[in-house]
Amino acid sequence: MTITQQFDSSHFAFVAQLCDLARQTALTYFHSPLEVDHKSPEQPVTIADRSIERAMRERIEAAFPGDGIFGEEYGKTASQTGRTWVLDPIDGTKAFITGMPTFACLIALYQEGEGVVLSAIEMPGLGERWLAAKGQGSYWFKPGLAPERCQVRKAASLAESLITSTTIDMFHGDDLRAYQALCSHLVGRRFGGDAYGYGLLASGFFDFVIEADLQPYDYLAPSLVIAEAGGLMTDWQGGALGLGGDGRVLAAGSAERHADALSKLASDHAK
Amino acid sequence: MTITQQFDSSHFAFVAQLCDLARQTALTYFHSPLEVDHKSPEQPVTIADRSIERAMRERIEAAFPGDGIFGEEYGKTASQTGRTWVLDPIDGTKAFITGMPTFACLIALYQEGEGVVLSAIEMPGLGERWLAAKGQGSYWFKPGLAPERCQVRKAASLAESLITSTTIDMFHGDDLRAYQALCSHLVGRRFGGDAYGYGLLASGFFDFVIEADLQPYDYLAPSLVIAEAGGLMTDWQGGALGLGGDGRVLAAGSAERHADALSKLASDHAK
Repeated sequence: MTITQQFDSSHFAFVAQLCDLARQTALTYFHSPLEVDHKSPEQPVTIADRSIERAMRERIEAAFPGDGIFGEEYGKTASQTGRTWVLDPIDGTKAFITGMPTFACLIALYQEGEGVVLSAIEMPGLGERWLAAKGQGSYWFKPGLAPERCQVRKAASLAESLITSTTIDMFHGDDLRAYQALCSHLVGRRFGGDAYGYGLLASGFFDFVIEADLQPYDYLAPSLVIAEAGGLMTDWQGGALGLGGDGRVLAAGSAERHADALSKLASDHAK
Repeated sequence: MTITQQFDSSHFAFVAQLCDLARQTALTYFHSPLEVDHKSPEQPVTIADRSIERAMRERIEAAFPGDGIFGEEYGKTASQTGRTWVLDPIDGTKAFITGMPTFACLIALYQEGEGVVLSAIEMPGLGERWLAAKGQGSYWFKPGLAPERCQVRKAASLAESLITSTTIDMFHGDDLRAYQALCSHLVGRRFGGDAYGYGLLASGFFDFVIEADLQPYDYLAPSLVIAEAGGLMTDWQGGALGLGGDGRVLAAGSAERHADALSKLASDHAK
């Protein structure tokens, strides 16, 4: 991973180490018989989710004492430094437990006043990884290949744009109507990407990712990967994504198409 | 692939060679800029689809002259031997062109009077493969691991069953209503599997795969992989799958649950 030498920050190499750790643990459990607990009917959790987050927290506490941590499984530790590590040990637990390799480990380093400054979309089941550093680009790492600098594509119109989401079942009520209305203007839609969809948008394979019912640990890491590839990701009103929010996100390769899509979402929400 | 030594048929080693060929060509084009033609708005095709099918046809014609071939891109060559090779060079072209590694190469050897006798679900983007031979089981090949004999799981009830499909957009009108009615009895549904979903069912990760709008080259190869893993796959009336059919398929791990699901589909279709 020679690309990491381009970055000054010791945090950056550290993010890559966290990814390695997550990959190793995830692959120990992936495609193996696994006991599944449920935090709620819609929120499965496994020993893999918990083991990975515990291991990442230990490493962070040892390396950067005083930094905050906000993880899916073990909640929030307050920050004394202005920095917070936002962690989803397994994003796409439903994919993970059904053997689909689209699950990810998501890591974002959030700096008070600056937003996300470093992030990773780690894909253990695919051996791939996206890493991004604020002001320094996003990179796609694939086995046996040199890291590729990511560059979004710019669709000429909504009618030529392709959208992806993990599942249509994340949209309910008005959200579902707004989503369907937006899709009616597009050339096509896909499902099943989990966090891989955000990476593929950053690398120029999709024009939009739209999702709802998310948490900051689901969207902060992808948001920097996409921004540093030349795209943008906001809530459904165009507002910046941070440690709060209503869980609705829209990522786009182009600012113009992002504005077009927001207006379609708003016009249907207003009905 | 020492497992192939268990099989007498020279056809079996040949199927594995066709898979190798498809993998090599698919990976030359995957994640690269690619021109996309459209046979219809819903049927994209690329140089990869065409190159793979041409190469497979040449190999088959040289090795087994007189065998029939039925391929997605280049149609039917009549059989003089009672055997027909049924080929989908890239199943999931939409996945392929959007960078999703769930696309597959599907190969089925169909023997008149016997049905499918050998088949493969080859996953170039994942380095995985399922191979099945009639009466001799299905095997899952993963990089660096010994082949695993596939065994479906048997859900105790519909309420504990999980279903997958490539996309909800393959169901229209009465089919969509019947599909939605069936889903309302299940614990959950997933999308985005492409042919990988059939392999995962054979290996015990899903209870059902349901799809529509398919062709024989989409479903014949998966049907043997699933049958040889202890499951079954039919049309929506429970009829055997062959070289014709209406393109609707239901695969299940358990005969009891398959019957339950057929009755839910039929009761809604009858409304």
